[in-house]
Amino acid sequence: MVEELSVIGKEKHHDKQIVDIVTGRLDYAADILPGKKLFTRFLGAPHAHANIKSIDISRALSLEGVEAICTHKDCPVFSDRILYWGQEVAAVAAINEAIASQAIDLIQVEYEPLSFVLDPDEAMQPRAPLVGAYLNSNITKNLEIFRGDVEAGFTEADVIIEETVGWTNYFQHGTVEPASAVAYWTGDHLYVWTCSQNPFSQREQIAQALGLPINKVHLTSHGTGCGHGDKHFSEWCIVAAVLARKAGKPVQVHLSRAENFMNRTHQFPVKATIKIGASGDGIITAIDTAFYADVASNGWSLVHQANDAIRFTYLCPNGSFKGYSVVTNKPKVGYWRCVGHAQSTYITEIVIDRLAEELGMNPLGFRLKNIVTPETPDQDSGMPLSSNGIRDILEGLAVAINWSDKWHKPGTRKLPDGRLHGIGISAHVDIHGSISKPVGAIVNLCKDGTALILDGISRAGCGTNSAHAHIVAEELGINYDDVMVGDWGNTDVCSDGGFQGGSTRTITTGAAFQMAAQDAKMQLFEVAADILGVSSEEISAREGKVFEKANPSNYKTHSEVLSWIPHPIVGRGYTWARELRRTVAGFAAGTPCHVRGVSGAVVEVAVDTDTGEVEILNFINAVDVGRAIFFKGCENQIEGGMELMIGEAFLYEQILDSQTGATLNIDYADNKWPTTLDVHTDRHKAIIVETIDACGPYGAKGAGEPVVSNYGSIANAIYNAI
Amino acid sequence: MVEELSVIGKEKHHDKQIVDIVTGRLDYAADILPGKKLFTRFLGAPHAHANIKSIDISRALSLEGVEAICTHKDCPVFSDRILYWGQEVAAVAAINEAIASQAIDLIQVEYEPLSFVLDPDEAMQPRAPLVGAYLNSNITKNLEIFRGDVEAGFTEADVIIEETVGWTNYFQHGTVEPASAVAYWTGDHLYVWTCSQNPFSQREQIAQALGLPINKVHLTSHGTGCGHGDKHFSEWCIVAAVLARKAGKPVQVHLSRAENFMNRTHQFPVKATIKIGASGDGIITAIDTAFYADVASNGWSLVHQANDAIRFTYLCPNGSFKGYSVVTNKPKVGYWRCVGHAQSTYITEIVIDRLAEELGMNPLGFRLKNIVTPETPDQDSGMPLSSNGIRDILEGLAVAINWSDKWHKPGTRKLPDGRLHGIGISAHVDIHGSISKPVGAIVNLCKDGTALILDGISRAGCGTNSAHAHIVAEELGINYDDVMVGDWGNTDVCSDGGFQGGSTRTITTGAAFQMAAQDAKMQLFEVAADILGVSSEEISAREGKVFEKANPSNYKTHSEVLSWIPHPIVGRGYTWARELRRTVAGFAAGTPCHVRGVSGAVVEVAVDTDTGEVEILNFINAVDVGRAIFFKGCENQIEGGMELMIGEAFLYEQILDSQTGATLNIDYADNKWPTTLDVHTDRHKAIIVETIDACGPYGAKGAGEPVVSNYGSIANAIYNAI
Repeated sequence: MVEELSVIGKEKHHDKQIVDIVTGRLDYAADILPGKKLFTRFLGAPHAHANIKSIDISRALSLEGVEAICTHKDCPVFSDRILYWGQEVAAVAAINEAIASQAIDLIQVEYEPLSFVLDPDEAMQPRAPLVGAYLNSNITKNLEIFRGDVEAGFTEADVIIEETVGWTNYFQHGTVEPASAVAYWTGDHLYVWTCSQNPFSQREQIAQALGLPINKVHLTSHGTGCGHGDKHFSEWCIVAAVLARKAGKPVQVHLSRAENFMNRTHQFPVKATIKIGASGDGIITAIDTAFYADVASNGWSLVHQANDAIRFTYLCPNGSFKGYSVVTNKPKVGYWRCVGHAQSTYITEIVIDRLAEELGMNPLGFRLKNIVTPETPDQDSGMPLSSNGIRDILEGLAVAINWSDKWHKPGTRKLPDGRLHGIGISAHVDIHGSISKPVGAIVNLCKDGTALILDGISRAGCGTNSAHAHIVAEELGINYDDVMVGDWGNTDVCSDGGFQGGSTRTITTGAAFQMAAQDAKMQLFEVAADILGVSSEEISAREGKVFEKANPSNYKTHSEVLSWIPHPIVGRGYTWARELRRTVAGFAAGTPCHVRGVSGAVVEVAVDTDTGEVEILNFINAVDVGRAIFFKGCENQIEGGMELMIGEAFLYEQILDSQTGATLNIDYADNKWPTTLDVHTDRHKAIIVETIDACGPYGAKGAGEPVVSNYGSIANAIYNAI
Repeated sequence: MVEELSVIGKEKHHDKQIVDIVTGRLDYAADILPGKKLFTRFLGAPHAHANIKSIDISRALSLEGVEAICTHKDCPVFSDRILYWGQEVAAVAAINEAIASQAIDLIQVEYEPLSFVLDPDEAMQPRAPLVGAYLNSNITKNLEIFRGDVEAGFTEADVIIEETVGWTNYFQHGTVEPASAVAYWTGDHLYVWTCSQNPFSQREQIAQALGLPINKVHLTSHGTGCGHGDKHFSEWCIVAAVLARKAGKPVQVHLSRAENFMNRTHQFPVKATIKIGASGDGIITAIDTAFYADVASNGWSLVHQANDAIRFTYLCPNGSFKGYSVVTNKPKVGYWRCVGHAQSTYITEIVIDRLAEELGMNPLGFRLKNIVTPETPDQDSGMPLSSNGIRDILEGLAVAINWSDKWHKPGTRKLPDGRLHGIGISAHVDIHGSISKPVGAIVNLCKDGTALILDGISRAGCGTNSAHAHIVAEELGINYDDVMVGDWGNTDVCSDGGFQGGSTRTITTGAAFQMAAQDAKMQLFEVAADILGVSSEEISAREGKVFEKANPSNYKTHSEVLSWIPHPIVGRGYTWARELRRTVAGFAAGTPCHVRGVSGAVVEVAVDTDTGEVEILNFINAVDVGRAIFFKGCENQIEGGMELMIGEAFLYEQILDSQTGATLNIDYADNKWPTTLDVHTDRHKAIIVETIDACGPYGAKGAGEPVVSNYGSIANAIYNAI
């Protein structure tokens, strides 16, 4: 780690690809092969639960302009078991979308309808129809963690509350770009352009589904119009590949908004019963939780993470934390931003506010009394945390919003216009930002001392490759402008950069890029040592110069050093989990440690109790990013997080018809997403808290997940108002 | 080096990109950005020598559809000094080529015509107009090498002949694809797609011409429709870049055939006076040469290589070898296949046949008496050769064509149809195939044990990246089909792979790929050693298995080993000139050595002395490739060489009007290139000679240059006939 950084964290640096994005030049999947491809539409099942008895595609196939159709008989993505209304049954590739749609209507399917259940509470009843993801029941226990002596903890308590909150909303990720791919074959080589949060994993999924060697699947993911957790998968790519093989032509799958609402993943609703006890002076003594997740028809669940919010955020010696998953006949669920934590923090923070009220305490003061301190190791494993800025965040938020002046007891302050004033806070510590699957990175040096990086992740909007460019520039000792992104998200040329998710790319792939840049730098230093007449250990590099540390006037520029090296220079780096175990103060060097995503928010609202309208007056989102590598990128994440929290608090909801299971709000007219009319960015403020993490490169840790999880602050502000 | 190879040299392996090429899928520059770009036409000067006094582009610019024009005032490619008829003066970018052509006619240029000289013999006269490449004269001496005592050598000789042969023809490279590029800008980043024999050097040329950092020039060269030496340069790319910047749109420069004949490079004509002496029993005792090259208006010359043929091919203790360059007002010259050697071998081999005739000897027998033996070091430097198969070649050719039965004294054999039968031979040793500028290579392993290589050279038709795939597969111990070319000729993602030319890519870039594969393999072996319970030195890999050498049943597949390695694996390799110095038998280990391109050809012709028609009855081309890495690629090179030799012997010629300097044969109707009617491949035979070179990877050396240089065999066969 260098003492003073010359590149990292500078506010002036822009995203490397922002010009390409705003000028429309970044290539998204649907931009590929204009005029040369077929278009696809899907047939969705008109039942929420059914078996397919037969499919007849002959009439559809004979329609002029139809070139290929696939069903469960020849495409591994489809099934003859229908588990939700709208589930894909067949896909048609035709010369245009209109003909593909017509053909869809000509496919004849005979179904055996089965009884279904949509409501998770009903699904847990003994005689509910079995959805099928689990064998004998719709419910399964995912987690049970005990800490200390819960009974004793409650006995100690002076105040005990028990609240049930939920279910939280079921909604689709609403990526600006729906699932999209263009595929074609050359011999037994498959070429796929797609949107992606995980290009290398998608390549493997596709190779496995189609029985191909990995290096015959050529997957490129450049532009990805948002992911939010919905673009780790490959179903749409596999359908495009199967149709392209059948048609012998390039095929585009680009879901319509309705197809995307139906067939892509959704946030899973959560309900929880939380019982908390505290002493009369406001110290939590016991927690007992039961979190339930509606994991829809695919039974996909990270509900074990739902307890993280309360486990990680608050000190408590005694706890019982339980998680259950319930399957229903809803369209699939999957990763949504801050997986499992967003909705559980919402629930938790409402309950915490209720407890503070019960104790007659200010919710900020109550939190500061119970919040995990920076020194506290994980309360269950005893492992140290690499950093924890939650206290700094709460204190910073309090100052920024002037909490001490503005807070009041619920329902006690009116604004001059007669509306009620409310203020709310939320705190959040989660498991994100931790080290993930080891990855690789490649850095190529050019003769003039500039560099090109090959970044194996896609461009999902987070600016991560710009963060990597910062790390490479800092490490090589060159300027930020002198590092360019050579290619990215291209499985033919990059080393696997892992998945864009879990707030892991700056820390994990960033560490690989740090090592790749070090590797390239060491090759330079070997030669520079001869030129400067010192050993390579005595050399450093900064701002385009390679110099003797003890005598900086003894220097050469990078390009001067490179002129002595006859071959081009490639730097490569890998992360190993063990290399990311660093020294945490108070623990032995190299001790494994937990990384934590840490954030908090405060919000002021005005509530019109006649109309129910809530206006956000002031919204501050604070995130502990360890160290801001790409400053503007951090700011953008935190600001984007506020827009999503407004959606989570007020809008996102996909509504299913209880009689059929059909989605009723199938377009953006009815399925709401915040617009500029809902979001007043001039009332928003981002606070970057730097704790210099012990684990990530240059002290960085992830920011992308915890930015969206404090919309409980809005609920608490409304409660405070009314 | 392994004892028995499992991948290299197998006849069954196809070119990695052949399917893409024959299906039209390989992307050439002109395929890029359809519908989004402007098109370009050039104004050529109507003088062979002139100064530009003024240019007025205003009328052209005001033509509807014209979007940008550049001249010498704003484009570094152009000059106000005109040195040949047709030299580019301006370029117009317009919405289509027709409008660009119209605009060309509206550009008004005022010239100051100067006297000019086209004929190199005239140019050497004292009062010839000065062309300008040299300061005070049109002629310059490029080479003077003395060996032994020339005078004594001639004194010793019983027979001395002195012949002047030349000038050989002046012709254009006639690449199927003319010079072609599409360029656009995003901010200060320049994107260029082009054809190339040297993508990284072109990137640097462009960056330097436009004052950009190297990593802001993003150059991709995928399909390259032949090079033959004409695609090492960047003028067309720079024009496209300048016009694209002015127009603010993508611009395509795709030369018309006429523009390409005029403005791209040509083969330089050579004339030589060669005096040779030999003893009565046919041993050469002295050589005195003077080679003259017509290096046209750009004065570009590798004429020093013109003497190589005679210096390298024949033993002779006494020699004087001189080379001169003469500038004329012809369109530019440059590298043509087997630079400088093709035309000089042609001249030399005619003179050698004349000497044999003078001695009353069979030309084959004479050559075998005087040809350099495999053991002979370079006669001037004394450095050993890494291999030399010229004797094997001559003996192999003699057997293959049945020389002893078929040869006869000139003009002594008639065919049954009355035409005269002739047979001729030619031998050739050159400097090609030697080690060039150090380069880099990158190999990415996939989890299933397959590999992707990043090859920094373009796809100019030689199949070189398939040769590299062989080397990588052999080295990694996996199958040829399990190595794919990830990307190539893309300066954003590859390491500099050098130039496609000089028969250097298999040996130089191939060595880098060998090292990159070794590097990846060693990372595998480190982990495999733990799994197999032996040290990594005791491990080998072959056909998808990593095994204990002493006990091959103790093995894991590559993918099994990889499943133990958490991160992806990147192999990188560089060539250093010093690493390519190998042990040559009879010399100390590590002795620097020369690599030699070695080839020979025999041909039988039928000549109709009434019509002058020559029919090739039988044509055998033999090349010492060191070791055939990519067998089919070697065959294709040698077969392609025969087609070019037919062109060199019979057709290629660009004819200039002596009154104006204008090119008279400006299209393929008049400027001939062999067609299927001229080339009877069923009468051609390729012989691959393997000498297992001491220098190249797996004993390989280059083949692409020496395949085209023995068209003197055709001249000698015609002489033998008539």
